[in-house]
Amino acid sequence: MRDVHRAISGWLALLGVTAEIDAAGNLRALYEAGGSAAPRLLIGSHLDTVPNAGAYDGILGVLLAIALIKGLAGRRLPYAIEIVGFSEEEGVRFGVPFIGSRALTGRLDAKLLDKRDARGFSVRDAIVEFGLNPHEVAEAHVSNDTFGYVEFHIEQGPVLDTLELPLAVVDAIAGQSRMEVTFIGRANHAGTTPMNLRFDAMAGAAEWIAAVEREAKGTSGLVATVGSVHTQPGATNVVAREARLSLDVRHRDDGVRKQAVQNLTQRAEKIAAMRGLSVSSVAHLDQAAVTMDPVLSDHIEQAIRKSGIKAHRMVSGAGHDAMVLAEKVPAGMIFLRTPGGISHDPAESVAVEDVEKAIECGLNLLDQLSASPSVETRTRRV
Amino acid sequence: MRDVHRAISGWLALLGVTAEIDAAGNLRALYEAGGSAAPRLLIGSHLDTVPNAGAYDGILGVLLAIALIKGLAGRRLPYAIEIVGFSEEEGVRFGVPFIGSRALTGRLDAKLLDKRDARGFSVRDAIVEFGLNPHEVAEAHVSNDTFGYVEFHIEQGPVLDTLELPLAVVDAIAGQSRMEVTFIGRANHAGTTPMNLRFDAMAGAAEWIAAVEREAKGTSGLVATVGSVHTQPGATNVVAREARLSLDVRHRDDGVRKQAVQNLTQRAEKIAAMRGLSVSSVAHLDQAAVTMDPVLSDHIEQAIRKSGIKAHRMVSGAGHDAMVLAEKVPAGMIFLRTPGGISHDPAESVAVEDVEKAIECGLNLLDQLSASPSVETRTRRV
Repeated sequence: MRDVHRAISGWLALLGVTAEIDAAGNLRALYEAGGSAAPRLLIGSHLDTVPNAGAYDGILGVLLAIALIKGLAGRRLPYAIEIVGFSEEEGVRFGVPFIGSRALTGRLDAKLLDKRDARGFSVRDAIVEFGLNPHEVAEAHVSNDTFGYVEFHIEQGPVLDTLELPLAVVDAIAGQSRMEVTFIGRANHAGTTPMNLRFDAMAGAAEWIAAVEREAKGTSGLVATVGSVHTQPGATNVVAREARLSLDVRHRDDGVRKQAVQNLTQRAEKIAAMRGLSVSSVAHLDQAAVTMDPVLSDHIEQAIRKSGIKAHRMVSGAGHDAMVLAEKVPAGMIFLRTPGGISHDPAESVAVEDVEKAIECGLNLLDQLSASPSVETRTRRV
Repeated sequence: MRDVHRAISGWLALLGVTAEIDAAGNLRALYEAGGSAAPRLLIGSHLDTVPNAGAYDGILGVLLAIALIKGLAGRRLPYAIEIVGFSEEEGVRFGVPFIGSRALTGRLDAKLLDKRDARGFSVRDAIVEFGLNPHEVAEAHVSNDTFGYVEFHIEQGPVLDTLELPLAVVDAIAGQSRMEVTFIGRANHAGTTPMNLRFDAMAGAAEWIAAVEREAKGTSGLVATVGSVHTQPGATNVVAREARLSLDVRHRDDGVRKQAVQNLTQRAEKIAAMRGLSVSSVAHLDQAAVTMDPVLSDHIEQAIRKSGIKAHRMVSGAGHDAMVLAEKVPAGMIFLRTPGGISHDPAESVAVEDVEKAIECGLNLLDQLSASPSVETRTRRV
């Protein structure tokens, strides 16, 4: 993280911009406005990534912010631009995502600062060890004069690649339900137990996995996944007593998502009843959908069209810093096509042409916001 | 094993019978015939069991042999009875079952003697450590004058309990196929990958598990089980790249079993093709079915009926020492009802009344064999 801060600070210095590191380890750099008492627009993404990752998830959004400053070629706007490079979005070390961006919305509280990693070091310890002061976290809060947050990010999915489009407006981030569903039957000998005398937890689970897929395919925009299956005792010659499954359900509309979860829970109970099994479920996450700011999304759509691209609107199935920022600031997101949808993998890539289009679109957006009267009026929301 | 040998030898001594331990660790004890040059009948089962087992699997068959000698009350038959308590049927230590009974059919060869346990000790080492001589294993071979082998064993399944019958004739031991079937798709983000752009290995696997159950339910006498499922990467928020499944298929007719395996393999390929997945399978076991001796089975059926019980005939879905002996000697088996089908578990049980019926049936059988001319003629088969 020190190395990336050093590299980015160097590139910004060449543009006459000074970078600082806030108490939550976020890189912050202000490109001043043309006039005094001007509002500011935040542009950025996160600088951390996952183990065995690719080169673009997160950091491309910070580099695009720098590229936009460079693209302005010294030209000043009626608002300042604050570049942000968030410190800890993925949640790898502490199991909690969005630590950096939470600091900007006042959500990096004492409880989160006390959260410990696998070796027993707290977030607070990590901040001190990095040479920062955890007592100054409150000062990392987003400035009162901020009128918006814009984030460029790779899609990390196959939609734009399939549509053959370089960019998209993200107008919502899907809500998520995560559950563990466990079917319980009886562990019987696979050789001595006739089919009609079995209580096979895995056979029931398989029927339900098919129902999960059917539910998602039959509901527009819904994704539902059983990614993890564990059988007990898990032997070739023993009918499974237990099948423990993960369920991940996402949709932009929380009502649709909750209805799907309810349908699937009822379906599991019906399957269990038909087969003489029992079933139980534990909810691990119920995260509401977040809508991006409609005015900012319209501006982004227009900016994409001005770059000569069809402006596709889509939902992000993954969480992003923009979701956290949206609580305090009008937030907007732009996705870049991810070839093959491959991400969190060294094979993650992005096309140079798509990055060029993103810069063009970003500069269009900056001009639109200069001209738009909404810049002034929306500042009050903060 | 030493303790069980000591206990059984003591009980046999009370009946005037001397027990010896052969070079494969089997307990052997001869109850002499009434006349000289008489043939012999083997009666027994195994003395070992699995960890966390019940009290009846195996050893009940040896105790029933002793009970029959006791029931004869000193009366001599026109044939000798050799009681056998096999040493190593379950295969827990060396991963190979039937080590004791294989010694009686000449199948405990040098390769098997060299087989090592988890700590690196070979079967040969274990024999030496037990105080026996591995060079004498050939002498454990079944005697040339043996005309049959009879084994009582708990069913270890729910069939007799469901039929409310204490005993059954086992007229065949099912053949077995064991395989590992692996579906491979693509690990995609569970949030960012729409349903129609997925290659979900677990969804394909679930469809196939349902097909396995359908195939078995639709084929008389067939059992087919997917007892173990592993997903990769196995995360809640990642579409499974890989689903690795076990398959266990059993039937008394090898042709029916092989056809079922072929049908299921083709079905897996069709499912994979429809979903853009790949599938591969590895065969781990292809063990032929073994038919019990028809004349001995008829005798057993008659003996059960004489005890006033409906003589149900059934297939054993599990392997038994009788399956190994059948290669060299006419072999027959009698199952005792297993309440709830519960076995390989401390809750394994057997009803006292059922054991009484087994003794009555066994004594009927001994009388029938005394009167039957087949005793003499069948000896030549050995």
